[in-house]
Order: sequence, then structure tokens, then C-alpha cells
Amino acid sequence: MTIDRDACVVGVDFGTLSGRAVVVRVHDGAELGTAVHEFRHGVVDQVLPATGRPLPPEWALQVPADYLDVLRTAVPQAVEAAGISPSQVVGIGTDFTACTMVPVTADGTPLCDLPEFAENPHAYVKLWRHHAAQAQADRINELARTRGETWLPRYGGLISSEWEFAKGLQVLEEAPEVYAAMAHWVEAADWIVWQLTGTYTRNSCTAGYKGIHQDGAYPGEDFLGELNPEFAGFVADKLDHPLSALGDRAGSLTAQAAEWTGLPEGIAVAVGNVDAHVTAPAAQAVEPGQMVAIMGTSTCHVMSGAVLREVPGMCGVVDGGIVPGLWGYEAGQSGVGDIFAWFLRSGVPPVYHEQAAARGISVHELLTELAAGQAVGEHGLIALDWHSGNRSVLVDHELSGVVVGQTLATKAEDVYRALLEATAFGTRVIIDAFTDSGVAVTELVIAGGLVKNELLMQIYADVVNLPLSVIGSAQGPALGSAMHAAVAAGAYPDIRKAAAAMGSVRRNVVTPVPENVEAYERLFLDYQELHDYFGRGANDVMHRLRQYRRDALGRKS
Amino acid sequence: MTIDRDACVVGVDFGTLSGRAVVVRVHDGAELGTAVHEFRHGVVDQVLPATGRPLPPEWALQVPADYLDVLRTAVPQAVEAAGISPSQVVGIGTDFTACTMVPVTADGTPLCDLPEFAENPHAYVKLWRHHAAQAQADRINELARTRGETWLPRYGGLISSEWEFAKGLQVLEEAPEVYAAMAHWVEAADWIVWQLTGTYTRNSCTAGYKGIHQDGAYPGEDFLGELNPEFAGFVADKLDHPLSALGDRAGSLTAQAAEWTGLPEGIAVAVGNVDAHVTAPAAQAVEPGQMVAIMGTSTCHVMSGAVLREVPGMCGVVDGGIVPGLWGYEAGQSGVGDIFAWFLRSGVPPVYHEQAAARGISVHELLTELAAGQAVGEHGLIALDWHSGNRSVLVDHELSGVVVGQTLATKAEDVYRALLEATAFGTRVIIDAFTDSGVAVTELVIAGGLVKNELLMQIYADVVNLPLSVIGSAQGPALGSAMHAAVAAGAYPDIRKAAAAMGSVRRNVVTPVPENVEAYERLFLDYQELHDYFGRGANDVMHRLRQYRRDALGRKS
Repeated sequence: MTIDRDACVVGVDFGTLSGRAVVVRVHDGAELGTAVHEFRHGVVDQVLPATGRPLPPEWALQVPADYLDVLRTAVPQAVEAAGISPSQVVGIGTDFTACTMVPVTADGTPLCDLPEFAENPHAYVKLWRHHAAQAQADRINELARTRGETWLPRYGGLISSEWEFAKGLQVLEEAPEVYAAMAHWVEAADWIVWQLTGTYTRNSCTAGYKGIHQDGAYPGEDFLGELNPEFAGFVADKLDHPLSALGDRAGSLTAQAAEWTGLPEGIAVAVGNVDAHVTAPAAQAVEPGQMVAIMGTSTCHVMSGAVLREVPGMCGVVDGGIVPGLWGYEAGQSGVGDIFAWFLRSGVPPVYHEQAAARGISVHELLTELAAGQAVGEHGLIALDWHSGNRSVLVDHELSGVVVGQTLATKAEDVYRALLEATAFGTRVIIDAFTDSGVAVTELVIAGGLVKNELLMQIYADVVNLPLSVIGSAQGPALGSAMHAAVAAGAYPDIRKAAAAMGSVRRNVVTPVPENVEAYERLFLDYQELHDYFGRGANDVMHRLRQYRRDALGRKS
Repeated sequence: MTIDRDACVVGVDFGTLSGRAVVVRVHDGAELGTAVHEFRHGVVDQVLPATGRPLPPEWALQVPADYLDVLRTAVPQAVEAAGISPSQVVGIGTDFTACTMVPVTADGTPLCDLPEFAENPHAYVKLWRHHAAQAQADRINELARTRGETWLPRYGGLISSEWEFAKGLQVLEEAPEVYAAMAHWVEAADWIVWQLTGTYTRNSCTAGYKGIHQDGAYPGEDFLGELNPEFAGFVADKLDHPLSALGDRAGSLTAQAAEWTGLPEGIAVAVGNVDAHVTAPAAQAVEPGQMVAIMGTSTCHVMSGAVLREVPGMCGVVDGGIVPGLWGYEAGQSGVGDIFAWFLRSGVPPVYHEQAAARGISVHELLTELAAGQAVGEHGLIALDWHSGNRSVLVDHELSGVVVGQTLATKAEDVYRALLEATAFGTRVIIDAFTDSGVAVTELVIAGGLVKNELLMQIYADVVNLPLSVIGSAQGPALGSAMHAAVAAGAYPDIRKAAAAMGSVRRNVVTPVPENVEAYERLFLDYQELHDYFGRGANDVMHRLRQYRRDALGRKS
């Protein structure tokens, strides 16, 4: 196969607050231009714009028109920034946050765009971080455990309140009129592709990870009917649709979408994808054992494996979930960068702020410098990184943070470093769980905003005792989407080949320091002991503290 | 007995940084005047003034001439402030920090006042918080355990590095020339009385609590010789001296001391005493079951009991240690106010400082206000108050602090309140240990600087489920010393009678709130579980963290 030297693809990454388009050259993956567009309504979690009425706690919505604005603005801007002719573009690919759900009519119109539903919050997009379906998720899990549903262990034993079934059941039970009116309950990842192609495709990635599609089937009617008799037909009526493999061509760019984007009508549109998963090929991590950690406010771990194993506490394992032909594994840490940000915001006294200001650096930089000057173990602390609960491997949102070892000499940089280390230990627990389950992790590739933190990277290398590879692109998801566009356009036979030509990774960027590895080995044993003590029921104090807090707030109100 | 309506006594409290004199009317305890004098050399813990040479870590010395300055300045100033004639003063009593030791010649001259020893740090006063004799203390404890010495359980199983034997052994082993030259190893509590009377008396309180005097004897020659052959004669040569009961007349004020103080020659001088213990009669807590908690940077608990019991983790039990005729019990919490101060200094972000400044209040006041607005359990946290280790009941200086339950919503006032509560739980553990050992605590009387903290007082009342009494005087130790002077002068037959007439306490100032008591009951169970887990060997992580820290600092140096 020869590739046109001028051919380009466009990748569009839909994040939580904005969409980013990047123009990539097909034959070598060069990123020629990029543009970002912020969603006009951002995250709708306070009041519904159409009514001005407040939303209940834990709600998080979005407005689908905002996504179309990204096609209209960021895509042409990226093409312009790239200095290419739109005619050079041979395909477009997209990735999205997940599970982010759109209730639509038969032609794909979001219900919130219909006058009769514009004031109904359930007619809007339920963003991934909409957590108001916890009661529904609890019932799904309880019933699945009772019935011994075989799909449950594929998700580490817990279906999330963020996913398709819990959110769908919430719509049914809280807004039956919306539920009745929706012809499809669609992942935003697929909805945006529908807007580009004019036809509905359902990608196998989200269907597997978020839609409980396992071994060719969804949860059965009897299961659903036991949750709620009205829910028995959920799969048949709202969800089921032929699945499309990642990298497949979903269709061709419509005249309408060509007008929005300024791209040629008829070019290839790739099947929808998920931001974390699409990062793996961007980092050339498409073989078994190559784990990619996308580190930001939280961390998502994705890795392909040749075999199917039920890894305790993983977020999901899906056939072809990352790369067709391999089992795609996902795990996660609920809190990482947001724990550091919380500490910087709420635990650092004025003297550090003054010193940082005097030196013209940030408080983060000052603390990092001070923490980096310490030998491993010098601060005398150990922490648990559960301020946002623990996803993998304990799957328990009600766990919380711990710091052990404080003295009157403990300083802010000590706690800061202990928190960095705690998240590294958390990653180590996940890697060990995979390896112990027969899905060995042989390489750790870091992507996401935290790769810039050199101290953090060294700590991770020392704690996991693996040289760290780092993704070469600063916009991994958009690059990964562009690769899928190249495959959909036929420029490469599969995503592996596209990854080899277009992806980039810097290998062994950070190597473990033997002395630190040794010192962390024993600290990790202490982490594990505290992890199991607080996390596996020996002392259930964290759950009791949550209950005391609820009781206290109840007494006050 | 009739008491002269004009008769007064002077009490002098020698603290860590200053001495305070107070003039008290004998018949009703009215405090007529007070004056404070700061020690010129304060705590000598950096360089020895005579040489400018640095002191090793953990050293803390004082200069005895500073104590005499208190007699010369604060006493006459207090008399002047009281507006009385010196001729009205019928006695003087003193209390001191302990164990604070002075090496002296046969006539009581401190060795540091001799030219040949002026440059030797071992010739100076070893202040209570001199902690450089830990190695000696460890050997004393090890040997006492091995030999099954019966006095060891009287001190909760641990002789402190602060006490007479450890410090004495350090002098012998590090400065044998000083050891050889000292005729007596004298508590500063007794040395100051020696300066007032011209004769050496040794009080039974420090002899018992700090000098291991139990059942009429000190540790034997064979024990001491096994520690170090040269130490075998320590008791006979340096320590032994007839003991004097608290409230006894040590002697009469000498012409020299009358000149220093401006008080009449020949008036009664009371036997030396200790600041914490002398506070008990000042708060009218002279009966069994009345525990006084002197709450400051740390907390000291003193209580008299009718029976001798070996309470786990107590600091000591001494016959007549507080009041003649009863067993005096002492326990302690290593860190209380200093933990709060550490958090205020090192854990509160700028926004609180700005808010407090804008409102013209302190950060402490702002945090207290915010914490006081919370219901019990609302913060979702539980902490262990071991930032300075744990004295009672675990007797382990290498324990450290813990906070459990932090989330991304945790605020500074949450942690602050959790730390206040942790110290209250610590007091509850001590009270329970006494009660469980058959020495019931029936009343808790609070003295010391922290009585002003209303939120803290309410938390203590709710946690221990006892109404709190509060000492009536702001200068409890000096008032207690004045009472002992009144007894020594013959104005009262014993300290009980003096306490009834001159002491003051406000009973039931803070009463438990039943709802809070109930909520704290279950939180206390969690505290106990964590207390035993981290403190009794189930998870020895705190000791390991200390070791990791030492190893890390070793690798760096």
C-alpha cells in the first residue's frame, strides 16, 4: 500500500469541558495543526439553562448542540492552522468521554432539542460524571450478585452508576415520559459519529465497557424485568444495535457535516471511540502487556491482553475494546491529580505561598522542589490515596484518605510527597493485580497532563520498578482518533500498522533508581498492609465515618 | 485556729521560661498581686553562653542564677503590686518544673558557678526537657525489666530519660569529672528552697515521681552497679537525703534570702513542690477521684487515690505525692496544645488567614468558630493525637499522628476539630485506664491555658461524659505554692484545710450534651480500635516509619 504523502486525517477529542481537533499527516503522524473549542454550557450541574431551576446534587448534564459547535469551529480552525487544503483530508475520527449518554428520537435528534422536552433535565445529555443514579446502580449490583450474573466479574464485581443501565433506569423511573419518547439511548461517542455520517453506528468499545455487552449478549429481559417490570425491554427497545469494531469505517461525511467542518463530503468517518482507550495506539501501546496510564485528575489504565482473565477490581474487560483481536482491559484510580490539587489548595500555609511568589514560581513548583530534595522515607509518612474513594482494585467509593506518621516536625512538602507516593503505590497495586491474574504488565506508558511532573514520574518508576515510557504527543486522544480515521480511510490495514507509522512514544524516559526501588519496596509493604486493613473489612471505620457524617448532617437539617 | 485577717503568703511558680510570684491572703485565698520575671538565658538548647559552642541535639539546659533573679525581682514586685506591707507576709512556697536537676557542691553551689566548670555543659542545670539521656534511660528500662524490678510498674513500665537516674548516669558517663565533683544531684524544686532556707531538704514528691523512691527505698546498689560499676554508689553518694512531706516547713527565710526578696527574715519556707501537682489543691482537688488535667502544650493529669494500684501507662504513683496521706497518681499526654499550634502553623491555607485578618480575629478563632458550627461526626474524620508520641497509656515516644477519612471536600476546620477531639479521646483513654484499675475518676477539673478554649472544653465534657470543673485561678501553681506556705506557716493544719479556704474551683462549668455524648460514644470506639491497632503492635508501621526516616537521613549524610 502506498500512502499519498500529502494525505491528512482529522482527529477530534471531546473532553469534559471542550473539544480539540488536530490535523495529522497520514504517512508519518506529524501533527500539523490543532484548535480547541470550549463548550458554551460546559458542565451543567447547578441550574438548567432553559429553566433557571436548580439541579439536584450529583447531577451533571451537557447540551449536545455544544458538541456540534466543535465541528463547526475547532475543525476548520485546525485545518487552517495546519496550512493545508481541506481537500487533503481523507478521513475524520472522534473520541469522547464515556459513559456520556444522549436520549434521542429515531432520527438522532436529542430530546432536549424538542420544544416539549426542553425544560426536562432528563432530556439532556447525562455526562460521565452524573452520579445521581447510584440508587439504581446499587440495585443492579445487588440483583446481579444474587442471581450470579456471569457478566459481573468482567467489571471487577461492580456496575457503575455512571454507566448505560443505571442512567437508563434512572430516566425510566424519574421521567417515564422521556423514557417513552426516546427511540435510542446513545453514547455521545456514537451520537457525534451519527451527526457526521447520518447513520447510527454503535461502537463495540462503549457497548462493552459501559453497556454490559459480554460474550455477544446484554443482560437478559428477565434480569431487567426483575429490576423494574417496565425496564424489561430496555435492551431491545432502546439499546440494541449492530456493533461496529474500532477502526471500521462508520460511513461517509454527509453534505451537512461537510458544510459544518469545511471538509470534503464523502470522506471516511471512523467508528466512535473513547478518550482513554484511543490513547493506547497513539502511544504505540497495542500489544499485550503494554499498559497505558492516562494520568490527570484521575488515572485510567488501559491495556490489551491475549487472554481473558477476571482481574479483581478492574473496570472492565472487552473483546476488541482497545484493539480488534485482543481483550481490552481497563482499570482506574478515582483520585490522582485532584488529590494533589486539593492539598495545594487546602493544606499549604501562607509562608509557602509567600516564598513561591517571591521567587516567581508556583506553590506546586516550590513544594515539588522541596519534596524532590528528600530521600525516600525521609518524611516518615505513609498515605492512602482514597480521597475520591478507590476504583481499582477495591471498587469502593466510600473509602477515604489516610495519612500516618505526622509529628510536630511534619511540613507541607512531606505530606505532599507522601500523597504523590500514595498514588504510585495505588498504581502498583493495580499492576500487581493484573500480573497476579495472569495478564502480565511488561511496560508502563504514561500519558496525560501529569507526565510533566518529573518528581512524580521518578516516584512512579521507583515504586513500580519499571522504566517509564512517555507518549510522544501532547494530544494523545485526538492523535489516536486521527489514526482510526486513517484506518477507516483505508490508508492502513489495521490500527497496529497505523500506530507503528503515526504513533509516538519515548521509551525508558525515566528509569528506576535501585536505591529508591529498595527503599520503596518496604514502604509498599506498609501501604499494602494499610490498604488491606482499611479497604478489605478488617476495620470498616471509613464506612462508619461516612455514616456518622450523614447522620450528623441529618441531625442538623 | 484564728487567722490574722491581714496575713499573706507568697507563692512562686518556676516555669520553663519564667518565674511568677503571687501574693495571696491567707484567710480567703484572695490573690492580691502578681509579677513575672523572664529567665535571662531562657532555655539553653543551642549554644552554651559561656563558650559560644553549640550543644548536641536534644540538650536543654538552664542557668541557676536566673532562678535567683526571680526571687530578687518578681517577689518584691508582686508585694508592691499587692499594696501590702512585706511584714504581713508569713510564709513563702515554691513549685518548679520537674525533673530539672542541678549538680551542686556540699554547700549547694551549682557546679557551673565554679570557674573550673563554667565551660562544661554538664555542670549546668539539666531542664526537664533535656532528652539527651535516652540511651541511659533505655538501659535502665531494659535492665529493670530483665531483673523484674518491682518499682518499674509504679511508672507505667518506663523510666523516662527526663528523670534523675538517666540524667545522672549521663553525667557520669559523659563528664566523670563533673560527676565526681558534685556532692548532691538536686531537684531544682529543692535547690530553690535550699537558697531560701540555707539548708537542703528533699521533697517526697519529686523523690517519688522522678527519683524512683518507692516503698521507702531507691533502686539498689547491685542494680546500679550492673548499669555501670561506677554508678553503684549513685544513691548513697549523690541522691539520698531525708525526705520532707509536702506542706511541711522546710526552714526559715535566711537573712540573705530576706534581702533578695524584701520579705521578713525567719518566715516559714515550705518544702519544694512540682508545678502540676501543686495545682491540685489550688483547684480544691485533694480527695480521691478528683482528677486535675493541667492542659497546655501537653497535658498532665494528677489525682489522689486512697488505694495503691498499678495503672497501665501512668507516669507514676507516689505515697503522699500530691497530698500527704493519699497515693498521688500522675499521667500525661505528650502533645495537646502543641498539636493544635502545629496545625495552625503548618496546615491552614492563606484564605483562612485573609478572612481572619479581614475580621480582626485570629486564625485560631476563625477555625474554632467554623468547627463549633459542626455537628459531632460531620467532618467524617478521626485522628490519633500522637504527634509527640504517646505517654499515657502506651508509653511510646515513637508513635505518631494519624488522620483517617479525608476527602476532596475536607477543610482545615475539619482537621482542626478532629485534632481537638483526638486529644479528648486520649484523655478518655487515661480516665478509663484509672477507673478500670480500681482508681475511679469521679470528677475532671481543668486547669492550664487551654481552659479558655470553650469548644475544646465542650468536646472534653461530651467525650468523657463528665461535667467539667474549672480552676478558679489563672495562676494555679503559684496559688498552690502559696497554700503550702500557709500550711508551713501554721495557718492551716494541713493542705486540705488550706485548699478549702484558699483554693477555688467552678464546678460543672461545662456539662455534657446527651446527643453529643451518644455520637462520641461510637466515635470513641473507632478511636480505641485505631489506638490499639497502631499502638499495641498489631501494625508496627509507626516504628518502621521512624526507622525509614533515620535510614533515609543516614543515606543522605
